[in-house]
Parts: sequence; structure tokens; C-alpha cells
Amino acid sequence: MTDDDVTPYAVAGDVDYEKLLARFGADELTDDQRRRFPDHPLVRRGLFYAGRGVSDFLDAEEQSIVTGIGPSGPMHLGHAMVFYFAKRLQDELGARVYVPLSDDEKYWFKDQTAAETGEYLRENLRDLLAVGFDPELTRFVVDTRDADVVYPLATAFGKEVTHSTLENVYGTPENVGQAFYPAVQTAHLLLPQLVHGEHETLVPIAVDQDPHVRVSRDVAAKARYPVGKPGALLMQFLPSLGGPGKMSSSEGVSIRLTDDADTVREKIRKHAFTGGQSSVEEHREQGGDPEVDVPFQYLSAFFESDDDELARIEAEYRAGDLLSGELKEIAADRIVEFLDGHQSRRDALGPVEDELPKFRLTEAERERAVDAVGFGY
Amino acid sequence: MTDDDVTPYAVAGDVDYEKLLARFGADELTDDQRRRFPDHPLVRRGLFYAGRGVSDFLDAEEQSIVTGIGPSGPMHLGHAMVFYFAKRLQDELGARVYVPLSDDEKYWFKDQTAAETGEYLRENLRDLLAVGFDPELTRFVVDTRDADVVYPLATAFGKEVTHSTLENVYGTPENVGQAFYPAVQTAHLLLPQLVHGEHETLVPIAVDQDPHVRVSRDVAAKARYPVGKPGALLMQFLPSLGGPGKMSSSEGVSIRLTDDADTVREKIRKHAFTGGQSSVEEHREQGGDPEVDVPFQYLSAFFESDDDELARIEAEYRAGDLLSGELKEIAADRIVEFLDGHQSRRDALGPVEDELPKFRLTEAERERAVDAVGFGY
Repeated sequence: MTDDDVTPYAVAGDVDYEKLLARFGADELTDDQRRRFPDHPLVRRGLFYAGRGVSDFLDAEEQSIVTGIGPSGPMHLGHAMVFYFAKRLQDELGARVYVPLSDDEKYWFKDQTAAETGEYLRENLRDLLAVGFDPELTRFVVDTRDADVVYPLATAFGKEVTHSTLENVYGTPENVGQAFYPAVQTAHLLLPQLVHGEHETLVPIAVDQDPHVRVSRDVAAKARYPVGKPGALLMQFLPSLGGPGKMSSSEGVSIRLTDDADTVREKIRKHAFTGGQSSVEEHREQGGDPEVDVPFQYLSAFFESDDDELARIEAEYRAGDLLSGELKEIAADRIVEFLDGHQSRRDALGPVEDELPKFRLTEAERERAVDAVGFGY
Repeated sequence: MTDDDVTPYAVAGDVDYEKLLARFGADELTDDQRRRFPDHPLVRRGLFYAGRGVSDFLDAEEQSIVTGIGPSGPMHLGHAMVFYFAKRLQDELGARVYVPLSDDEKYWFKDQTAAETGEYLRENLRDLLAVGFDPELTRFVVDTRDADVVYPLATAFGKEVTHSTLENVYGTPENVGQAFYPAVQTAHLLLPQLVHGEHETLVPIAVDQDPHVRVSRDVAAKARYPVGKPGALLMQFLPSLGGPGKMSSSEGVSIRLTDDADTVREKIRKHAFTGGQSSVEEHREQGGDPEVDVPFQYLSAFFESDDDELARIEAEYRAGDLLSGELKEIAADRIVEFLDGHQSRRDALGPVEDELPKFRLTEAERERAVDAVGFGY
């Protein structure tokens, strides 16, 4: 595997995460930084493992988190984990959470119609609403629907991102929408500061997306915008259910936030890549490998927050006392429990059109952002 | 001069306008088409000399004209001529006139700040308002200010314009804004049909801009949009005041719509390229050449609509009875007269913020356009 070939192989240990940091010029999280975050398995157990400007963020009185989603299908567990993490930071630190929904991006990059994009968007919004963010501190921004603010910002930043930066960071675009997207993404990442004035912002993001944040950091460094560089909190790859077996039929199977308990259990039983041995006898004798076991990885990353309990599971699995099938059931239980809560909150929501307005930018916020880049004429 | 080197040299006869049509695949206007247009010097005397889909436009019951301006400075006589021509078509045919103001484009392509762009925009809008369009039939659309409609449309079309089309038609962009502009321009050209349903639209445009219209025609040809291909009315180059003398200090001098009478006379006296001889004696003897005389070209194109009067001027100039200085005074008189009217109307306007609203898209019009491309979710 080359440096340029970073794909979700984490579970097999194929990614050299330190080398990636050296290449990107980001820093591994220090123990001190880890302690200062609100307690959360994603940080404590190291899936979030590095960053830029993290101490500045933790030191700041005013903090925003930017974490978005592109509506290209139903939301999965991996998305939910990051949004619930952001909610934890909001609850504990009083941080603002800005969630850009890049319907334009997905329309440009995926083989999906506008109607399909709209359906995914609506479903994604329902899941976002179900997370339970504080509407006072949270803004959902849909690129085409909030174009009155997104587009003037992207116009400003579209002049800053050269075509050669585009080619270097994103490769050659297929269409002119794809070419423009770095300007839109920069608008997303700088939006909280343009609305509320310069302050510390943090972008939790998979480590391979770091170059995209760097494009926006470079724009933010230009003196003509009243913003500082957004920080980044970099995440290792969470394995998909099928684990590293890219060629298997399980590739791409993942748990959706809409899956019912039976579907979750069925998917895990049938598709989860395990660290177990090929027979019960062998497993009892040699034990399993939690490092590559996807159910264990999910428990560790998010779904089993009790360290003692996780340590017990790990030890029993390594010892061969816990079978892969049993470990799968434990993970399924925790995930079903999580989804039960999420789904009840989603079911209790009114129509999106009724729930969304309090999470949208106010008129005054829109004006401030557009004024801040000089297009408020 | 090569085919790829089309620059405003019209007065010197350096452009092979027929060859350009062959290259672009457009058609010269027929006598019949010329007759069917509302009488106007720009058509009658051939500055508008070719087009695409012109007969369909003339045959149609429902007609829209799209003619925009990029705010990169004060408006000049050349701009005004086309807008007054559009108004004539509106008055005579009841045609709608859509005027896109591409502040995004000029910000991306010119070395100008957002604040400068905003100032030019405001001035350009005052001049547009002074033309006297019918607010019922006219829409001024500012890309960043009307982004709620422009951007969803550009998002739709951004997927249709490939990067290789961009490179072929526009060349390699400097920044990602420039890369995106063909999608925005397509939004401009298709907007009347997206708002009002499929109907005939005509884009009056300098002949070298024809490839840009063709990009939008190709998008319009895709079955998924409820629009037909916009037609084009192609214009030869109007010489700048300094004529073909590109290297002279008069290059780039042009008459602004804000120039007072003295300034106009001074500019014409000092900078207008003439077809006269080098001495009065020689001129009396050999006569002048109206073909290359810029004051004569301006009279012919727009400012002297009476054919008999123009013929008299031409004959006297050719005969040497009319001196270049005298011809300049005639042109200056007509232009000052035109500007007097324009400037009085502009002075009578209230603030742009008060005058503009009735020329902006209504909420229902915005919704229809965004719905028509599928982004009305």
C-alpha cells in the first residue's frame, strides 16, 4: 500500500496512521488533550487520534464544531457516532454545532438525481433532528436551500482556490460542479466564524479528508477574512461491517439508522468480520483477535463506554472463553439499544418542515455572514 | 489574424464574419428575418447580422430576451445600445427581458474586490433602471443576491458541463469560481423558461461569445429539463472610440453613460478614430472613408436612425464636403442627446433599493424555477 492509497483498511492494521500525520503535518493528540475533552470513547480509545489546533480549541471560551453530511443515502452508524460525539461536546462545553448538508456535492459526485438527493436529504435531516441537538446552539445548513448565504460565501472563496490547488488536492474534476466544491466546503468550515465573529472551530473528520480542511485553512489565513484557521480532529477509519474483506459479498454492508433490531442482528450475524478461529475447538484453544474483530471495534469505538466491561470482553475473547458468535450478540445488543433510543426520538418528531426552522440560520445570522465576506451589498 | 484571434477590429474590416459563422455553425440573418424584427438600426444596418433559432423566436407568441452585464465598471454606450434594443423588442413584441448581473463572474475574472464589485453593480443597476423597461415583463437577477434561485439552477447545470467542455470553450480556469461560471451562465440563459415554461428565448450577444451560448444550448437539449434551446442573435464588434489603433493612447477610451456633454465632446474630438485624410485640403479632394470612421459607425449602428439623414452624411463625407471634425460634432450631438434622455431618467429615479424590488423575481417565480430543475425539495 502506498501513501496515496489510504482506504478503509484500519481493522487489518494496514494504515500507518503516524506516517499519515507526518505527511499531512498534523499532530497526534497528547494525553493532556485527550483528558481535556469531555469523556467519550471516540477520544478515550483513540479513534480520534490526531489534529490541528486542538489545544486552541480546548482553551477557547467560544467554540464551534463543524461536522457535515452529504446526502447520498441513508445515514449509517459511522455518521451517527460523530454526530452524537458532537452533541456530547455541545452538552459539556456549550459548543455550537454547525452541520452543513452538501446536497450540491452529492449531486455532482454521485450518480443520483435531484429527486433522490432530496429524499436522502429529508431522511438525513430526520436523523440529525433525532440526535437532540440544542436548537439555540445548532445550525443545519443545506447548500441549495440556504444558497442565499452559502453561495455568496462560496463566491468569495471561489476566487481564492486556484485551479492547480484543486487538481493537486482533489484531482481532475469530471464536471464544473465538482471543480467548484472546494469553495463551498470552505464556506462550510468558515461559516461559524463569519456568523459569530472569529473564534475557535474544530472539524472532526476522517484523516484522509485532512487535505480538504487544509484548503480552507489556507483561505482562512488570508488577512482579508475575519476568521482564524479552523482546527481539525482527525479520525482513524472505522471498519465497515465486512471488515478488510473488500472482495467479499459483505463489502459495503453497513448498519443504517433505520434498521430494526432483527435487521441489525441479521447483518451482524451474517456479515460482521470477526477475529475468531475457524472452528469452536480452535477458538477455545487459541482465542480470538479483538484487533481485527469488527463487533469488538464497534464496541470499543462507541457502543460500550464502560472500560471495565470492555476489558472483560476483550480478555474473554482473547482467552477463547467468548466465541465470535457471542461477541456478535453483545455488539448487536448495544447497537440495538442505541438505535432504539435514536429511533424513538426520530419517531416522536413532527414533519421535518415543522422541526427544521429552529435549526436554520436566522436572517441576522445570514446577513452577518454575507457582510463578513463583502457581498452584503 | 487567425480564426482564434477574434478581437474588436471590426472597423478595419479584419474580421471575416462569414467565416466565423461557418466555424460556429450559425446562420446569417435573412432579409425576411431582418424585416420581421421591430425596426431598429442595429438590425436594419447589420450590426446584428446572424443568429440561431431566430425565425422560431420571431414566430413565437411567447418570447423572452436574455441580455446581461457583468459589473466590472461603469456602463458604456455599447452596453446601453443592446439594452435599449431589448427594450424596443419589449415595447414592440411584448417580449420579456431578463437581465442577469454576474457579480460572481466579474469578481472571479477581474482584479476587483467585493466592495468594488458592489459599487459597479449599484451603478449598473441605476443605468438599467433608467432604460425604462416594463417591470411586469422585466427581471434583473443578481447572482449573489438572487442566489436562492441562481445557485440551485447552477447546481443542476454544474453536473452537465464537463470539465473538458470547460477547457475547450473557456480555456483553463485560474480559480474554481471561473471553472463554475459556465453553470451559472447556463442558469441565466435558461431561467426565463424555467420560470415561465418552455418558450422561445433569444440571447443578443457579440459573435465571439457564441460558443458560450452553445454550452447552454447543449444543456437545454437534455431531455430532463423542461426547456428548449435558447436562440442567439449575433453581433459584429462595435469599434471602441479609438478604433483599430490598439496601441494608441486612445485604446480603451469609451463613452460612459455618466459622461456629461462636455466630456463626450472632448472624448470624441480627442480620441475618435476617423476615416478622414491627413489635411483639410486632401480631405476636400479625396473625401473620407465612413467604413473605418468611428463617429460614422456609431451613428450608423444606433444614434442616427433616419436612413436618409445617414445617407446624406455618408455621401457628404465620401465627397469630402463633410470634414472629420464636422462628422465628429454630428455624432457628438446625437450621443449627447441620447445621454441627456438617459441621464434625466436616471436622475429621476429614487434609491436603487426602492426602485429595484418590482424588477426582482417574485417568490412564486423563484419556486417555479427551482422546482423545474428538481431542487425544490
